[in-house]
Amino acid sequence: MPANELQQLKKRLSDIASLRSAAALMHWDQSTLMPERGAKHRGEQLAAIERLAHERSTDAELGRLLERLEARSPADATEAALLRVAREDFERDTRVPGAFVEEMTAHVTETYHAWKKAREARDFKRIVEPLKKTLDLSRRYSSFFPGFQHAADPLIDGSDPGSTVATLRPLFAELRARLVPLAREITARPPFDNSCLRREFDERKQIEFGALVIRKLGYDFSRGRQDMTAHPFMIRFNANDVRITTRVKKDDFGEALFSTIHEAGHALYELGIDEALEGTPLARGTSSGVHESQSRLWENIVGRSRPFWEHFYPELRDSFPAQFGDVPLDAFHRAINRVERSLIRTDADEVTYNLHVMIRFDLEIDMLEDRLRAEDLRDAWNARYEADLGLTPPHDGDGCLQDVHWYGGLIGGAFQGYTLGNVMSAQFLEAARRALPGLDDQVRSGRFDGLLSWLRANVHSHGRMRTGPETVRHATGRDLETAPYMRYLEGKYRALLGTR
Amino acid sequence: MPANELQQLKKRLSDIASLRSAAALMHWDQSTLMPERGAKHRGEQLAAIERLAHERSTDAELGRLLERLEARSPADATEAALLRVAREDFERDTRVPGAFVEEMTAHVTETYHAWKKAREARDFKRIVEPLKKTLDLSRRYSSFFPGFQHAADPLIDGSDPGSTVATLRPLFAELRARLVPLAREITARPPFDNSCLRREFDERKQIEFGALVIRKLGYDFSRGRQDMTAHPFMIRFNANDVRITTRVKKDDFGEALFSTIHEAGHALYELGIDEALEGTPLARGTSSGVHESQSRLWENIVGRSRPFWEHFYPELRDSFPAQFGDVPLDAFHRAINRVERSLIRTDADEVTYNLHVMIRFDLEIDMLEDRLRAEDLRDAWNARYEADLGLTPPHDGDGCLQDVHWYGGLIGGAFQGYTLGNVMSAQFLEAARRALPGLDDQVRSGRFDGLLSWLRANVHSHGRMRTGPETVRHATGRDLETAPYMRYLEGKYRALLGTR
Repeated sequence: MPANELQQLKKRLSDIASLRSAAALMHWDQSTLMPERGAKHRGEQLAAIERLAHERSTDAELGRLLERLEARSPADATEAALLRVAREDFERDTRVPGAFVEEMTAHVTETYHAWKKAREARDFKRIVEPLKKTLDLSRRYSSFFPGFQHAADPLIDGSDPGSTVATLRPLFAELRARLVPLAREITARPPFDNSCLRREFDERKQIEFGALVIRKLGYDFSRGRQDMTAHPFMIRFNANDVRITTRVKKDDFGEALFSTIHEAGHALYELGIDEALEGTPLARGTSSGVHESQSRLWENIVGRSRPFWEHFYPELRDSFPAQFGDVPLDAFHRAINRVERSLIRTDADEVTYNLHVMIRFDLEIDMLEDRLRAEDLRDAWNARYEADLGLTPPHDGDGCLQDVHWYGGLIGGAFQGYTLGNVMSAQFLEAARRALPGLDDQVRSGRFDGLLSWLRANVHSHGRMRTGPETVRHATGRDLETAPYMRYLEGKYRALLGTR
Repeated sequence: MPANELQQLKKRLSDIASLRSAAALMHWDQSTLMPERGAKHRGEQLAAIERLAHERSTDAELGRLLERLEARSPADATEAALLRVAREDFERDTRVPGAFVEEMTAHVTETYHAWKKAREARDFKRIVEPLKKTLDLSRRYSSFFPGFQHAADPLIDGSDPGSTVATLRPLFAELRARLVPLAREITARPPFDNSCLRREFDERKQIEFGALVIRKLGYDFSRGRQDMTAHPFMIRFNANDVRITTRVKKDDFGEALFSTIHEAGHALYELGIDEALEGTPLARGTSSGVHESQSRLWENIVGRSRPFWEHFYPELRDSFPAQFGDVPLDAFHRAINRVERSLIRTDADEVTYNLHVMIRFDLEIDMLEDRLRAEDLRDAWNARYEADLGLTPPHDGDGCLQDVHWYGGLIGGAFQGYTLGNVMSAQFLEAARRALPGLDDQVRSGRFDGLLSWLRANVHSHGRMRTGPETVRHATGRDLETAPYMRYLEGKYRALLGTR
C-alpha cells in the first residue's frame, strides 16, 4: 500500500520533528529562564532526547521505507521534495558511524572548554594539539561522503547544500577584489562620528523600542516572543512558535536594536514557511546562507537605510529625547553606518564584515588541504589581517581565538553562510524592488507588508522545498551573483559620503 | 550479566524519565509563556512525546528485563524498591489495552469540552450522557486489574497506592463524625471578619511578598522559579528544577499568598527527594496523599498559625501599610482562619474542606457500585450538601459541575488524596514536634530549617522508596489515624474562638 507507506514516512519524520522541537525547547529554557542549578540534569535529559531523535533518524526501517517510496514516481512536487530532503538527512545521519560521532562529540566538548581557557589566556599555543585532532576528525568526517570533490564540500553541504568550494571560491574572489579597495577608499577618510550611540540608554526602553520596530516589520508576538540571553539567537518550535532572544548594553545603542532586527529577520523566514509543511523536514529554512540573507536584509539593507530611519527616527527621539534630541537624522544615519577596519568579526560593519568571513573561509580550506598546518594558524591569521585590513591583533584573543566555530565543532563549512547571506540579501532586494516600485516610499511611511509579502511568496514559504541556489534562482531569475551586493554597498556609501 | 541488566533497566527508565521531563517542560511552557498561536502544534508535539514515552514504558523488552531481574535477589533496598515501582508502573501501563486508552482519551477530551459548556449553562442534564459512558469506562478500566476488592480500588491505587475503599471508608467515617459537629459549632457563631483581606493589593507586591515567604520556608530559587498561570501548579523537571506557579487577585489577599505557600510545599517535597534516585521512577512524590500533606502542612498548619504571623506580620505591614496598618495581628490571624459553610470546595476553609471531599468520595463509590445512577448525581449531590453543610447549590455550576475531575478523567480515585493529605499533615507535624521541642519558637523567629530538615529526613528524601502508608508509619511510628488532625483542628479553633 504505497499511500500508507507515505503516511508511515510522514509519521516517522514528524516524531523526529517533535523530539527535536522538545530538545529545542529544553535548550531555549536553559538559555533563558532555567534556574541555574537545574543545568546538570537538564544537560543529561537533553542529551537523552537528542540520542532518541538520532536513533529514530538513523533507524534502518526509515531507510527501507525511503527506498520503497523512491522506487515509484512521486505524486507531486511536495512529495518529491520530501523524499529528497528525507534522503539527504538520512544519508547525513547514517553515513557517519556511531563510534565516530561519540569520539567527535567528546573531543569537541573538551576542545570547547580548552578554547575558553586559551582565549582567556590569549594563548593560541594551548589549543594547537586539540585543533590538530579536530582537523583530523574533520577530514575523517568528510571521508564518509565519497561523492564530493573537496574535503570541505561535505562540511559546507551540511549547512549550505548546493554550495561547494568550487562554486564559492570564484564568488568570494570576485567579491574580495572589489571589497578590499572599497574598504580602503572609505577608511582613508575620517570615520563617521558614532558617539551618539555610546550615551546611556535605559535598558528596558531599548527593549521596548526594538519590540516596536520588529512588530512593525511583521514579527507577530502571538507567534513568538523575545527574551534575554548572553548570545542572541532565533529558535523554531513549530510553524506558529518561533522565538528570538537579544542582549542589551546600556552604553551601546546599536547592540540590542540591530541584534533584535537580525534575529527577527531569521524568525520572519521561519514564520513564513508554508504551514502545510509542518511536521516534515521541509519546514525549515533551507540553508545557512538563505537564513543569513533574511536576517541581514532586515538588519542592514532595510534597518540601516535612510528611508527606514525617516520613519522611525521621530519615534526614537521620543523614546530617547536626551540622547538624540541634538542629533540630526543624517548624523544618526551616518553613525549607524560607520565603517572602520577592525579585528572582531561580530563587531564589523557592512563593508568590512565579509573580509573577516573570507579570511576564515580561506584558512579553513588551506587547513583541510594540508597547505596550512594547525600550528601555523595564528601566523597565517595575523598575516591575512594585515594584508586585508591593515591590522595585526594585539593578542590571540582578538585574533584566531575570537570565534567559537573551529573550537566548538569541526573545521570547514562554518563561515561561508554569512557572506553568502550578504550577497543574496542584495540580490533578493533588487528583485523585490523590481516587483515593488514604491518600496522606499513604503518603508519611509513605516509599511513593510509589501516587502514581507514578496519575501514570503518568493523565499520564505518554500522552506527546504528549494535548495539555497534554487531559492535564489526562483526568487530573482538568476544564479547567485555579487553585482547586486556591490551595487548596493557602493551606492549606499557613495550617498553617505556625499552627504557630509 | 546481571549487573549489566540492571544498568539496562536504569537506562530504559531514565530515557522514559527524560521524555516525561521534556513533556512536562512543554506543558509548563504552554501554561506560562507560550505565544498563543503556538497552541495547536504544541498540542500535537506534546501528544507525540507522550506517545513515545508510553511506547517505551510498555515495551515488551522492558517486561522481560524486569522478569529476569525479579528472579534474583536484589542487591539492596534501593534496587528492591526500584524493581517494585518499575513493576507497578509497567503493570499499570500494559494491562490497559491500547484500543481502550484511545477510546478513553477521545471520550474524556470530548467530555471535558462538553463539561465546560454545561458548567457555563449551569445545566447538569447536558453532561449526563457523557458521564454515563465515563462511568462505564471507569468500570472497564478497573476490570483490567482483577486483583482488587472494589471497582474504585485500581483507580485509587493510581494516585494513592496502598489505600483502598476498605481502608478509606472507616477513616473518613470517623473523621466526618467529628468534623460535622465541629463545623456546626463554629458556624453557629458569627464568622470572623475577613474584610481586611478584601482591600486593594498591588499585584506585584503580593508576588514579592509571597516569594519572600517561601524563600524563608526553604524554597530555593536557584532550583526553581515561579510564574503566573490561571490555575496554580507545581511541576518537576528534575531533582534541581522544580517550579511553581500562582495567580493573583487584586482584591483577595489570600489567593496568591496561600496558593504560593501551597505549591511551594509540593515543591519542597520534590526538591527534598534524594538526588541519587534521579532518573529513576523512585524520584517522585510517592502518592497524592503524601504530596497534599506537604502542601497543606506548609499552607495551613504552618502558614495560618499564629507563630508564623508573629514573625511575618511586621513584614507584611511594611509591604502593605495602608491595608494592614489598622489591623491588629489577632484580627488578621482570625481573618485568614475564617470558617463558613460554603458551596465551593476550592474556597473552603480547613474545617469544612474535608466535608466537600468526602461528599465526592462517597458519590464516586456509589456510582461505581451502581447504587447511584449518573442521571441522579445532581440530586444526590444537593441532598448531601444540605445534610453535611446545610446549603443547597443555587445552580449546577456551583454544585455537581464545579470540579473538573469527573469530566476530565475517570470516576474514582480523584479526591481521596486531598483528605488523606490533611490527615497526614497533622500526624507528621505531631511527630516533628516530638523531635523538635522548640518548633513554635523557631517559627516565631522565622526559622524553618528545623522543620524542613525533619521533613526531608523522614518524608521527602525517600520518594517512592516508601508507599504512602509506609511513609506515615516510618515518619510517625504509627499507621495513619485521624486523632492528630482532630486534635490540631479542635485545638486551633478553641484558641481562636477564645481570643475574641
